[in-house]
Amino acid sequence: MAKMKLYYSPSSPYARKVRILAIETKLDKKIEMVNAALTPVAPNADVDKHNPIGKIPALSVKGMDLFDSPVICEYLDTHHKGRKFFPRKGRERWVALRQQAMADGLLDAALLARYEGALRPEDKRWSDWSKGQMKKVDGVLDALEAESKALKGKLSIGTISIVCALGYLDFRFATLDWRGKRPKLAKWFSTISKMPSVKATVPPPA
Amino acid sequence: MAKMKLYYSPSSPYARKVRILAIETKLDKKIEMVNAALTPVAPNADVDKHNPIGKIPALSVKGMDLFDSPVICEYLDTHHKGRKFFPRKGRERWVALRQQAMADGLLDAALLARYEGALRPEDKRWSDWSKGQMKKVDGVLDALEAESKALKGKLSIGTISIVCALGYLDFRFATLDWRGKRPKLAKWFSTISKMPSVKATVPPPA
Repeated sequence: MAKMKLYYSPSSPYARKVRILAIETKLDKKIEMVNAALTPVAPNADVDKHNPIGKIPALSVKGMDLFDSPVICEYLDTHHKGRKFFPRKGRERWVALRQQAMADGLLDAALLARYEGALRPEDKRWSDWSKGQMKKVDGVLDALEAESKALKGKLSIGTISIVCALGYLDFRFATLDWRGKRPKLAKWFSTISKMPSVKATVPPPA
Repeated sequence: MAKMKLYYSPSSPYARKVRILAIETKLDKKIEMVNAALTPVAPNADVDKHNPIGKIPALSVKGMDLFDSPVICEYLDTHHKGRKFFPRKGRERWVALRQQAMADGLLDAALLARYEGALRPEDKRWSDWSKGQMKKVDGVLDALEAESKALKGKLSIGTISIVCALGYLDFRFATLDWRGKRPKLAKWFSTISKMPSVKATVPPPA
């Protein structure tokens, strides 16, 4: 397998999914990491060349550029010989893909709230928008608490995504206290945070 | 297979992906359609029950609710006996998933621009944000034109997604003239728009 290039940033929770999976599958040695900062109003020309949507992560591999994080992760998962992080079929697969969709959906909403409160000029902020996005974040957190039994067991793309989503909340929404009403989710996150691949990819100090 | 319920709206381009796939796979007869309107600032309680992110489409099936559109489409594709719209493996699969990611990425950006220009109070609009999102739309359109050869052949989840993305631009950004610099993409879209499943799911008059 030719060397792959991953466009990422240390603070991107979507890129963190790829980085954790790469470590878990030992593909990290075959990936050259390219640190690329950007925002929706300050694109990165190098990233734009590899992803027309202008987002990270993007993976450059054998004459093809792959994105977004679910596609990159599934691609990597077909290129190693160990246990699979995308269950191949049946209920297990839908549980994992649904968990990934919940975590990514939480992140999409949290990032929009973050852009609203930190990137957008103060006089153009709309509190209804931020509230609407944070309601989505809360909804996913409640669903994850209610379904915490499904978090048990070996790491999957679903639980990797959830780790990255919760880690992002600690990183950018430190005052949110998402743990307060969700003791099971909090306990699971505390345990899984000790895994070397999770520790190695913690976002830098905010 | 028990009856499934699809939460959708006639104007949602993501839900349209599911509706086209359902028609193509003849699963549409097994799906009860529930019309559910919402925006990020005006959620829909019925949808929230089935998708904690509060977005459509959501598919309720056998004690499990599935989302987002890529997960629903892949699920449906495993529940019919005809030709598969998600190529099972190899380069064909990555081409299709990458096309889907491009189309969905175009849509994510176009919807944010639409919310900015139509939903947000006028005095809180930020032109840099809209420009940044429309730059993503343009980037994907240019990439699709450059890769128009990959559009040929039988319908896949990739090309279904692209049809829905381009259809959304005609629906909500009628003055954009995306065809001007992209004759190959325009020609392909014009041909594929004659397919019965595509015709049957055209958004209502804006």
